[in-house]
Amino acid sequence: MSTSLRKKPAPRRKPSKTYHHGNLREALIAEGLAALAARDQAEVSLRELARRVGVSPNAAYRHFSDKEGLLAALAAEGFRRLASAGASAAAQCSDPSAALNLYGRAYVDFALDNPGLFRLMFGGSISRNASDELARESAKALEQLRLGIALEEGLPPDDPRVGIATVYAWSVVHGLAHLILDGQIDGFATDTGRLIEAILAISSSAG
Amino acid sequence: MSTSLRKKPAPRRKPSKTYHHGNLREALIAEGLAALAARDQAEVSLRELARRVGVSPNAAYRHFSDKEGLLAALAAEGFRRLASAGASAAAQCSDPSAALNLYGRAYVDFALDNPGLFRLMFGGSISRNASDELARESAKALEQLRLGIALEEGLPPDDPRVGIATVYAWSVVHGLAHLILDGQIDGFATDTGRLIEAILAISSSAG
Repeated sequence: MSTSLRKKPAPRRKPSKTYHHGNLREALIAEGLAALAARDQAEVSLRELARRVGVSPNAAYRHFSDKEGLLAALAAEGFRRLASAGASAAAQCSDPSAALNLYGRAYVDFALDNPGLFRLMFGGSISRNASDELARESAKALEQLRLGIALEEGLPPDDPRVGIATVYAWSVVHGLAHLILDGQIDGFATDTGRLIEAILAISSSAG
Repeated sequence: MSTSLRKKPAPRRKPSKTYHHGNLREALIAEGLAALAARDQAEVSLRELARRVGVSPNAAYRHFSDKEGLLAALAAEGFRRLASAGASAAAQCSDPSAALNLYGRAYVDFALDNPGLFRLMFGGSISRNASDELARESAKALEQLRLGIALEEGLPPDDPRVGIATVYAWSVVHGLAHLILDGQIDGFATDTGRLIEAILAISSSAG
């Protein structure tokens, strides 16, 4: 796993002007993820991230042409982490149905652990085609779910039924994540983990 | 059906200072719903709505103490309309499972027809307890879904399994509505209506 896939953002670095190309981009992304964890994406600015890693705004603008470019890079990193978490979870079971269940749990957990990043990735404020990297990473994450569904259903991945079943499974975990994140189901369960398991159990009985 | 339940906001009225108590509140809500259909809730202001219905800001503040009060009233009206749409849809079928399916379709359609209002109602920016009216109307809308589930499952409404099945059914339609609204599944279907039907068919086979 490359360092860009690590779970937690890098610790705040001491101001330095000695970033190499690539290093600085990574540092800005780490600061951006930390900022998204603390506040709304509208309040994240490239200028402030530059200040936090100790470089001039111009140095930051050499890596991201504007704020949209930065947000696209953060969202792409989010899809990379989601795919990584999903793959690690699903790899725990060889049974396709159980693996899919673990994938669903990883999806909801990712949303609950990274609400700001999750909203950025899926909230529609940034287009999937905002950058080639984002288009590629989001497609890869979705393809992972589709392949899991194909395996479980015993159908080729390009079968239209697999497409429908993918949107269905995605809707369940996406809706559940939103309802929990947005405080909608507080009256339903004291133990969110058990609620998630129960919903995924119903979901995997469908088809 | 009272006028406050009608589907479309009232047409823009001519400026007038002759609102009776109640009339003005309704006029401000109608303007607020129209504003929510056109732009983000953050950009809706009580002052502007007052101007649009032709009264002073002070007159508007007699009905809503602040913007949060206005948003709570708009969200409450949204839950009233959602419950009304859901009840009308479900009433078309006596079979509980088919009725629940129609309810789900009405939920997704409501979200797609009223994205700004839907995000206000469920986006977590306003607490369910922001007003007694909002707490009551949102609880009623949810209770309606729970009763439909209880009927379909043949269980008493307060059975824990009904609670779980309610969150499950809600997750499916809520997630699907979000994925469509946020432009996530453009690659999956050219006919959104058929996709929704297919997802609801899978959903109703679960349990």
